[in-house]
Amino acid sequence: MASSSPSTLNLPSRFFHKVTPILPSKNNLRYVSSSLHTISNANLMRYVSSSLHTISNANLMRYVSSSLHTNANAKANLMRYVSSSVNAQTHFSTVGAESTGPIPSDQLLQVVQTAANTGAEVIMDAVNKPRNITYKGLTDLVTDTDKMSEAAILDVVRKNFQDHLILGEEGGLIGDSSSDYLWCIDPLDGTTNFAHCYPSFAVSIGVLFKGKPAAATVVEFVGGPKCWNTRTFSAAAGKGAFCNGEKIHVSPTDKVERSLLVTGFGYEHDDAWATNIELFKEFTDISRGVRRLGAAAVDMCHVSLGIVEAYWEYRLKPWDMAAGVLIVEEAGGTVSCMDGGKFCVFDRSVLVSNGVLHAKLLEKIGPATENLKGKGIDFSLWYKPENYHTEL
Amino acid sequence: MASSSPSTLNLPSRFFHKVTPILPSKNNLRYVSSSLHTISNANLMRYVSSSLHTISNANLMRYVSSSLHTNANAKANLMRYVSSSVNAQTHFSTVGAESTGPIPSDQLLQVVQTAANTGAEVIMDAVNKPRNITYKGLTDLVTDTDKMSEAAILDVVRKNFQDHLILGEEGGLIGDSSSDYLWCIDPLDGTTNFAHCYPSFAVSIGVLFKGKPAAATVVEFVGGPKCWNTRTFSAAAGKGAFCNGEKIHVSPTDKVERSLLVTGFGYEHDDAWATNIELFKEFTDISRGVRRLGAAAVDMCHVSLGIVEAYWEYRLKPWDMAAGVLIVEEAGGTVSCMDGGKFCVFDRSVLVSNGVLHAKLLEKIGPATENLKGKGIDFSLWYKPENYHTEL
Repeated sequence: MASSSPSTLNLPSRFFHKVTPILPSKNNLRYVSSSLHTISNANLMRYVSSSLHTISNANLMRYVSSSLHTNANAKANLMRYVSSSVNAQTHFSTVGAESTGPIPSDQLLQVVQTAANTGAEVIMDAVNKPRNITYKGLTDLVTDTDKMSEAAILDVVRKNFQDHLILGEEGGLIGDSSSDYLWCIDPLDGTTNFAHCYPSFAVSIGVLFKGKPAAATVVEFVGGPKCWNTRTFSAAAGKGAFCNGEKIHVSPTDKVERSLLVTGFGYEHDDAWATNIELFKEFTDISRGVRRLGAAAVDMCHVSLGIVEAYWEYRLKPWDMAAGVLIVEEAGGTVSCMDGGKFCVFDRSVLVSNGVLHAKLLEKIGPATENLKGKGIDFSLWYKPENYHTEL
Repeated sequence: MASSSPSTLNLPSRFFHKVTPILPSKNNLRYVSSSLHTISNANLMRYVSSSLHTISNANLMRYVSSSLHTNANAKANLMRYVSSSVNAQTHFSTVGAESTGPIPSDQLLQVVQTAANTGAEVIMDAVNKPRNITYKGLTDLVTDTDKMSEAAILDVVRKNFQDHLILGEEGGLIGDSSSDYLWCIDPLDGTTNFAHCYPSFAVSIGVLFKGKPAAATVVEFVGGPKCWNTRTFSAAAGKGAFCNGEKIHVSPTDKVERSLLVTGFGYEHDDAWATNIELFKEFTDISRGVRRLGAAAVDMCHVSLGIVEAYWEYRLKPWDMAAGVLIVEEAGGTVSCMDGGKFCVFDRSVLVSNGVLHAKLLEKIGPATENLKGKGIDFSLWYKPENYHTEL
C-alpha cells in the first residue's frame, strides 16, 4: 500500500481542509458527496490506505474493501467513516474507560446518581439561606454547604462500595488505594456562584476504573432566586450521555465564527491565567462569543447538551473534570489537553468540544499552551494517588 | 459656613476614603463609629457644611442641625445619611423620571408588563424549535423570533397608547414624536444566547417620560433545555423594583475583592472593545470573578437582584438599557456612564452597581474611559429621536 501522506495526494486542498479534521454532520456529508465527484477511486484508495496505516482496525479495513467499488453514496459514507475514525483514533484519544469493570454499568451509575442527588438535596436546602463563607485564598471560597454536601455523598459511596478509593475536593483522599475504582467528587462545583446565588453551580461525581472515567453524574443548579431548578447529566462508558433521562448530543456547528464558547479562569493568576485572558480575547473576536459562567462541570455539560460548542481551562483538578469529560465524550464530543495531547483526569488543563471544531480551536489554543511550556509552566500530571493502579 | 473641600480638613484620610463614596452598611457603621471618636464636632461640621453646598435639601439641613450636638451614635447616623446623600445627589445623578407623568404608574406599568409578557409568550413558543437565523454582521444575529416578539409587543402598545413614540430594536422609530412617552423595546435581548438555547435572554421594555425611564419590565428566560422558566423584573419611577412580585434590593457587598461582577462585549471590535478586555482582566484579577453572560438587560436585573454587584458595557443602545437602569436604581443601586458622568438612555455606555461599590469601580473604569475619549472615541449621545422633547 502506498504510504504517502494525504496532503501529497492529487485531491483538492479544500477537500482535506474540510474533511480530514472533522466528524460527520449533514453539511459535511453534502460537501463530501459533491467533492467525491471530482476524485478518482484510485486517489480515494490511496488516501484511505495512508490513513489506515495509523489505524489497526480489521473491521474498518473490511468495511473499506466492501464499500469501495460501489456508488457515490457509499463512497461518501466511507469517507465520513474513515475521517471520523482517523480523527477519533489518531488525533484525539478516547478518555473514557472501556467498561465499568466488574461492576455492571447500570449498578455503578445508579450509585453515582444516588450519591449526586444526595449532595444536591443538601445544596437545595441551602440555596435560599445565608451562607457561612470561609476562605482558601483571597477570592477562593468554601462554604459549610460544600462540606455538608461532600459528607452526604461520602456516606452513600461508602455504604455501597466500602473498598473504593475516594478523592473529594474538601476531604482529600480516603479509602483503599488498591481499588481499581477512584471516585472524584466535587460536592459543589462553582462555590463562588453558589455564594452569590448566581446560577449555575453543580454536584459533580466521576468514577474512574483503572484511571479512566467509567461513570458520571452532574446535577446542575439552574435559574437562580425565585426559580431554582436542577438538571441532571449522566453517562457510563460506552452507553451514551443523558440529560434528565433523554439522550443528548453535542452540536453539529462546524465553523468557529458560528460557535458559542465558554472558558474559565482559576484562582492562581500566573502566566497560564494571562495566556487564557489572551485566548478569551482572540476567541471573543472571531466567534459568536465566549461565555464565562464559573463552574467547570457545568460548562462541560453545556457542551454535551449542544448549547455551546467548546470549553477550555487551565489549572483544573480531577474532581472538576472526571464527570464532565466522560459526559462530553459520550455525547459525541472530543476531549484533549490544551496542547492537543492525550488527556487524563490527573492532567492540569482540558479542552472539550463538539469534535468538529476541536482541531480548529487547537490552532490557537495549542501554540499558546506550547508557549507556556517554553516558559517552564508545569504541565506534568497534577496529582495521581500513590499506589493507585491505572491503565493510562 | 466654610467652603473648603472635605479633603483639606483635618480628618484621617482613610476616613474620607472609606466613608465619602459609599452608602451605609453594617460594617461602615462600625467603621464610622470608631472613626468619630477621633474627630471633633467642629471638623465634622465643616465637612458637613462643605458637602451641603452641593445639596439643596432643606430636610437634610434640618436633620443635620438637630442631630449634630448629640451622642456618638447620632453622629454616626448623621455621617451615614450625609455620605449617602452626597453620593446619591451629587456624585451620581438619579436616572429615573420623577414620575410616570399624566398616566398613573400602575396603569403604565400594567401595559408594559402585558406587552413584555406577550413578547415572552412568542419566545417561549420558540425555545425548543429550530431557529431561522439571519445576520446583521458576521456574528450579529437576528432570528424570526426577534421580529415576531417585537410585532406582538407593538400590537399591545399601540392598542393602549396610540400616540406614544416607540423605538424598537428591529423596527426602529415609529409613532408620534410630540409624545412625552418613548417606549424602548428589545424584543429579544441576548439573541446569540437564544440562537444557542443558552440561558439567559430576555424581553426588555422601558418607557421614558420626557427622556427619563418611568416604567420598566424585563422577562428573563432562565434554565435552558429541559428546564426553561421565566423570571419577571419590573419597576416604576419612585415605586421600588420587584421580581416575580416581590420587592428586591441590590447587594450590600462593600469590597471589590468580595464582589462578583459581569460585563459584556459588543459586535464592534474597536478601541472600546479592547479597553473592556483589559478591564475584564483587571477586575477578574481583583474580584471574585467577572461573569460574561450575554444579555445587557439580564445582567442589570442580576445587579438589582443582588446576585452580582455591578455590570458595565460600552456600545449599548437605548433598548438595551432603558428598562435595566430603572430596575437597578429602584432596587437601590447606582447608574452612571462609564466615565462616571450623568447617564441617560441615549448614552453609549453604562455602569450599574449596588451603589456601595460604584466609586471604587470607577477608579479603574473611569480613567480607562477617559483614555478612550483622548483617543477620539465618540462618547456623545448615540441617538435621540428628532423632535422628541426631553428634560435631560
